[in-house]
Amino acid sequence: MNGSVHPLGRRLAAEAVGTGALVTVVIGSGIQAADLSQDGAVVLLANSLATVFGLGVLIAVLGPVSGAHFNPLVSLATWWNGRGDGQGPLLRDVAAYAVAQISGAVGGAVLANAMFARPLVNWSTQQRHADHLWLAEVAATAGLIVVIFGLTRTGRAGLAPVSVAAYIGAAYWFTSSTSFANPAVTIGRAFTDTYAGIAPTSVGPFILAQILGAAVGLGLVAVVFGPQALKSAPRDIEVTSAAFAEQGSTRP
Amino acid sequence: MNGSVHPLGRRLAAEAVGTGALVTVVIGSGIQAADLSQDGAVVLLANSLATVFGLGVLIAVLGPVSGAHFNPLVSLATWWNGRGDGQGPLLRDVAAYAVAQISGAVGGAVLANAMFARPLVNWSTQQRHADHLWLAEVAATAGLIVVIFGLTRTGRAGLAPVSVAAYIGAAYWFTSSTSFANPAVTIGRAFTDTYAGIAPTSVGPFILAQILGAAVGLGLVAVVFGPQALKSAPRDIEVTSAAFAEQGSTRP
Amino acid sequence: MNGSVHPLGRRLAAEAVGTGALVTVVIGSGIQAADLSQDGAVVLLANSLATVFGLGVLIAVLGPVSGAHFNPLVSLATWWNGRGDGQGPLLRDVAAYAVAQISGAVGGAVLANAMFARPLVNWSTQQRHADHLWLAEVAATAGLIVVIFGLTRTGRAGLAPVSVAAYIGAAYWFTSSTSFANPAVTIGRAFTDTYAGIAPTSVGPFILAQILGAAVGLGLVAVVFGPQALKSAPRDIEVTSAAFAEQGSTRP
Amino acid sequence: MNGSVHPLGRRLAAEAVGTGALVTVVIGSGIQAADLSQDGAVVLLANSLATVFGLGVLIAVLGPVSGAHFNPLVSLATWWNGRGDGQGPLLRDVAAYAVAQISGAVGGAVLANAMFARPLVNWSTQQRHADHLWLAEVAATAGLIVVIFGLTRTGRAGLAPVSVAAYIGAAYWFTSSTSFANPAVTIGRAFTDTYAGIAPTSVGPFILAQILGAAVGLGLVAVVFGPQALKSAPRDIEVTSAAFAEQGSTRP
Repeated sequence: MNGSVHPLGRRLAAEAVGTGALVTVVIGSGIQAADLSQDGAVVLLANSLATVFGLGVLIAVLGPVSGAHFNPLVSLATWWNGRGDGQGPLLRDVAAYAVAQISGAVGGAVLANAMFARPLVNWSTQQRHADHLWLAEVAATAGLIVVIFGLTRTGRAGLAPVSVAAYIGAAYWFTSSTSFANPAVTIGRAFTDTYAGIAPTSVGPFILAQILGAAVGLGLVAVVFGPQALKSAPRDIEVTSAAFAEQGSTRP
Repeated sequence: MNGSVHPLGRRLAAEAVGTGALVTVVIGSGIQAADLSQDGAVVLLANSLATVFGLGVLIAVLGPVSGAHFNPLVSLATWWNGRGDGQGPLLRDVAAYAVAQISGAVGGAVLANAMFARPLVNWSTQQRHADHLWLAEVAATAGLIVVIFGLTRTGRAGLAPVSVAAYIGAAYWFTSSTSFANPAVTIGRAFTDTYAGIAPTSVGPFILAQILGAAVGLGLVAVVFGPQALKSAPRDIEVTSAAFAEQGSTRP
Repeated sequence: MNGSVHPLGRRLAAEAVGTGALVTVVIGSGIQAADLSQDGAVVLLANSLATVFGLGVLIAVLGPVSGAHFNPLVSLATWWNGRGDGQGPLLRDVAAYAVAQISGAVGGAVLANAMFARPLVNWSTQQRHADHLWLAEVAATAGLIVVIFGLTRTGRAGLAPVSVAAYIGAAYWFTSSTSFANPAVTIGRAFTDTYAGIAPTSVGPFILAQILGAAVGLGLVAVVFGPQALKSAPRDIEVTSAAFAEQGSTRP
Repeated sequence: MNGSVHPLGRRLAAEAVGTGALVTVVIGSGIQAADLSQDGAVVLLANSLATVFGLGVLIAVLGPVSGAHFNPLVSLATWWNGRGDGQGPLLRDVAAYAVAQISGAVGGAVLANAMFARPLVNWSTQQRHADHLWLAEVAATAGLIVVIFGLTRTGRAGLAPVSVAAYIGAAYWFTSSTSFANPAVTIGRAFTDTYAGIAPTSVGPFILAQILGAAVGLGLVAVVFGPQALKSAPRDIEVTSAAFAEQGSTRP
């Protein structure tokens, strides 16, 4: 990865910390809300708003270091979009990112369990296994990809913190699956038998649906934003980071 | 449409995808919320917040391509404001936008029904037929037009994503009709017999009230922002898109 | 008022429309929420969030025309801060603003009543008459003045839409009076016997407390931001408008 | 403190007013919400949203004067990061900040009690004393430090108002302690026997956990953002203020 602003080690640390914190927010807020209320919509409202706030901050703070992917499919799509012009990340960097993301996600689940006095590892028993849930994961992930690459294709990666957070806030509600849309977070959520959990046996189909959704999303990006010119190539990991850093230097 | 940045086909795709996603958000979040809670205000809170998040993101992401109208009356008002100076869109483009918006809206309703395991087409049985609801639609649509054209008349189309989303978030609550304010979305909502639906027989009067509201809104814009000078002409579809693109290049 | 960008008539129209719409949001959302829920905190949550969204949009849209005061005490404080250097508004303009604001507020109450099929004028029977409520109004208004003039004193009037809206969103909750903090809105709320109403006999003491709060706020501004230099004089109505317009031209 | 923009007296006034107002928001919104609802999650939702709105505004308004720390650990961490290069604040300034913050916090609690007709000083009887709550305070404070110094290390202190507010909004929910994360606020909350209170005997361990969390947070900042170069030294109190002022002059 040439032209890298931050060394790979720190980028991987940022991805692990960020994905972990995201999972802690998702699981922790779910536990707190479900402990406090009998009203299912109030619980989901608390869970979704906490995620909006937390995810937005994490992207804003860690974006300049690693690009704030927190999601193997976002890293993979970044590789896909940049594969033609020699500017994108290498596949082995994507693999390293994915390992950091998944490790972080598991750590985040353990931390959430610990803060709420639950067993540190506590396999979920919540089945999420149905056709319409898989359709929802396809739609949710496709939408996420359109948001991220729509913004980067139009040179506005700096709007990602607010936009991605808001998108997830909507997707919690408009999908029947409450929008996992992220294989690393899905794996992390298997480690807690609480509100936000997912049974290990339901993880595989969810991830397959998410992969399909990412492909649909990339197709939609091409249809709406057009085939991509060499010059306006989608940002690879470093370029995204640079955009964030630039935003910093010009905005405060 | 001279000076167009994006080809018409991609702009129509953006309008169809955006209006469709908006309807999916409105209907899907309504189904989820109504399934989870008995408290009517909690349901509307979830429905309105999901719409705020979703609509804001859709305008931000798709604005640079098509202007992110997602609403035939916004397209029509753009034509009206630009008809005098040869810079506005042609009426036939407005018609094409409307077809894309309505098609997208119907598709979005079908997707929402599918994700929640409902019949794909499921005519609404919810009557929304009363004087005070029509007054509410007039007020809601007038306000929407004032927000959009007030911002463009003062050269601040870049504030549209947050402002229009926030406006709709308020209008869900301050109007007795929960603020449809959009003929395409109104038609789409007839295709689902769930929380956000509207009986086909109630659609016509709603759209008439919305048209009247748009006219009232254009009048208010003239009163508050003044008769429009040739130079500061309201942005037509392309100019709006250019403003978005410009925002992109200067802000990240 | 020399150097005025917009003619007084349009500025008064903006103040009337803006204050009216604000009152419509406050009263209308209160009616809708109270009709839908038995849970008092859910009702206030809906009422406060709708106000945050609505007020923020109104300031953003109308700020470039009139300064978006929507509040006689904000207009008066603007006069007070600018009285020494010949740049502030004249007292007679403040009086004209106040008339427009109060007229708009009454109109906004009538519109809200009409949209919810209530009698157009419907005097409130809700007593709000107690020592601790008046203390709350003092605190709420003082805080509002600190927010507005703290931002203008540090040259950041462009942050007003989000900041003032967020302030009111907090003040609904941290004050026992739910933070009226505005004589025009207080008068408008007397015209509806619904959730957000205030009995006419309670209006006088509320307004007195608000005036006292504005004075406390101006004192706090002087303590925290220092005595004001001639050059960095607080923005008068026109300068505030210019700041908004400038924001427009540089930001999109 | 060389290069100071604002005299120490005004900066201390800003810290006292800001921390006081923050505590008023936290306690007042807790009283109002708990009076209005039986649903624990609705109460925490109101409490957390009011805090998000209030904290964001306070940082935006007072940041240019004092840096808007409102938290002795943030002041101390600022000293720690700047101790090597002669640009940071002196320890005695940190002590003065802490005194102002704690005094303000107590005053804010008294004001909240008064506005809700409670005894002015009213020791809390709410025990918050458990291993998992202390772990939560460690995590909450570590996260807060990462957000603040992650933004300043990447030159984006101007994003602090929104980011810190959003972080706290998430942390209310993802931690079992509802995220005090601030010794001054913790002390202030001992002065009210209401929803947001903490028994005086629980204050000490909470503050110890917060100190530990701040140290963990500084470690994480070093791991993710790298050892700090002399040139890109973390902003000291004045530099942070300058960044805010600069934001003001360029953004409106």
